[in-house]
Amino acid sequence: MDETALRQGIDDLYAAYADCIDDDRLEEWPDFFVEDCRYLITDRESHAAALRHGIIYCASRGMVADRVMAMRRANIFEPHRYRHIVGPARLDAVEGSVATAHANFFAVRIMHDGDTRLFATGRYLDRIDVGARPFRFIERLVVLDSRKVDTLLVIPL
Amino acid sequence: MDETALRQGIDDLYAAYADCIDDDRLEEWPDFFVEDCRYLITDRESHAAALRHGIIYCASRGMVADRVMAMRRANIFEPHRYRHIVGPARLDAVEGSVATAHANFFAVRIMHDGDTRLFATGRYLDRIDVGARPFRFIERLVVLDSRKVDTLLVIPL
Amino acid sequence: MDETALRQGIDDLYAAYADCIDDDRLEEWPDFFVEDCRYLITDRESHAAALRHGIIYCASRGMVADRVMAMRRANIFEPHRYRHIVGPARLDAVEGSVATAHANFFAVRIMHDGDTRLFATGRYLDRIDVGARPFRFIERLVVLDSRKVDTLLVIPL
Repeated sequence: MDETALRQGIDDLYAAYADCIDDDRLEEWPDFFVEDCRYLITDRESHAAALRHGIIYCASRGMVADRVMAMRRANIFEPHRYRHIVGPARLDAVEGSVATAHANFFAVRIMHDGDTRLFATGRYLDRIDVGARPFRFIERLVVLDSRKVDTLLVIPL
Repeated sequence: MDETALRQGIDDLYAAYADCIDDDRLEEWPDFFVEDCRYLITDRESHAAALRHGIIYCASRGMVADRVMAMRRANIFEPHRYRHIVGPARLDAVEGSVATAHANFFAVRIMHDGDTRLFATGRYLDRIDVGARPFRFIERLVVLDSRKVDTLLVIPL
Repeated sequence: MDETALRQGIDDLYAAYADCIDDDRLEEWPDFFVEDCRYLITDRESHAAALRHGIIYCASRGMVADRVMAMRRANIFEPHRYRHIVGPARLDAVEGSVATAHANFFAVRIMHDGDTRLFATGRYLDRIDVGARPFRFIERLVVLDSRKVDTLLVIPL
């Protein structure tokens, strides 16, 4: 695959992922991951210290799917939505069918009453299976800039 | 036209549109639309309910131009500017010379005294005439995430 | 160089520049400039009035490097970091090996206690040496939307 097509495919993956969450189509969210995946939301300092725990942690696509089901069932939180802006993806390396990439993001949270605030900022650090279409995440680390974000972090980022 | 050129053209259209508004060159804003166009600012819930009214509604390029003239004449609002960040355009479909695309946006409002706040977030839903250069909007729906935005929504988004 | 490669190179420059600052690798920041460069942070009104002073002003790569050293030594400010989102780069012109381009940006500031706020918005106005790899800035003007930003503007934007 030429590099332009590869970059375009990664940009599309990033945008489709954000759209899926922003549109509240969370049942489709696990499809963005390979079966044997890792999804972790952590903060910058924990990540720098190589701590492997996180605010949200899923070690397989099954856990990703479970998380969505639990969220839909529990429904104890005040309804809200996100709106993401994801900066341009940066392709760091490609080895075989695995691309390493990252991007900055801002996520705004919109409460049911319309109240809007900048909720989370940070960086996606990704390993992506680019050997088949659609591209899927082998690993997505969501590294938040601030530790203050964890209240009401129910919807994935 | 190949897809890379098409995507590049749409990205350029999106960026030029945002620049036009952010630079307060609103007299050029109607040029981004075909003659027989539709421009609508609405909110997510009204859009989901297929309501066709909006906070701002223009059903032709003439109405788009009228809106700018009215805004310049009235001048009863406190001076302010916007700054947009538009996420990467997503190309949904191309039929003949009409492309369907969308993108997320954040708009910050800067008041005359320098006060800055995140004013509006949402999504552009577009139908674009890509049969001639420059590309122009046949329809631009601005779907706001929150209903709370309508105070002082004078400048288009 | 074809236009796709040129645009991609500029997008990469913009993203690498933001990453360098956001990652606090400021010792690498001077490398983004040619020797005989200009770096200026100003505000929209001063820029429109063609005023050449700025909140931060460097007239050579040496001054850019000095600024970083001074910042590291002084260390009198409360620790904080930025997170940038830079919109798509717009290529305005290419003459010989010099490209003129611009982009919008939002910068969020994250204080040591995690407090996060939208700190600065504005536009980069750039002249870029695209005659050699990596591309480097001949001139980067950071035009802020608001004059209110100058408190605690220590880290470059």
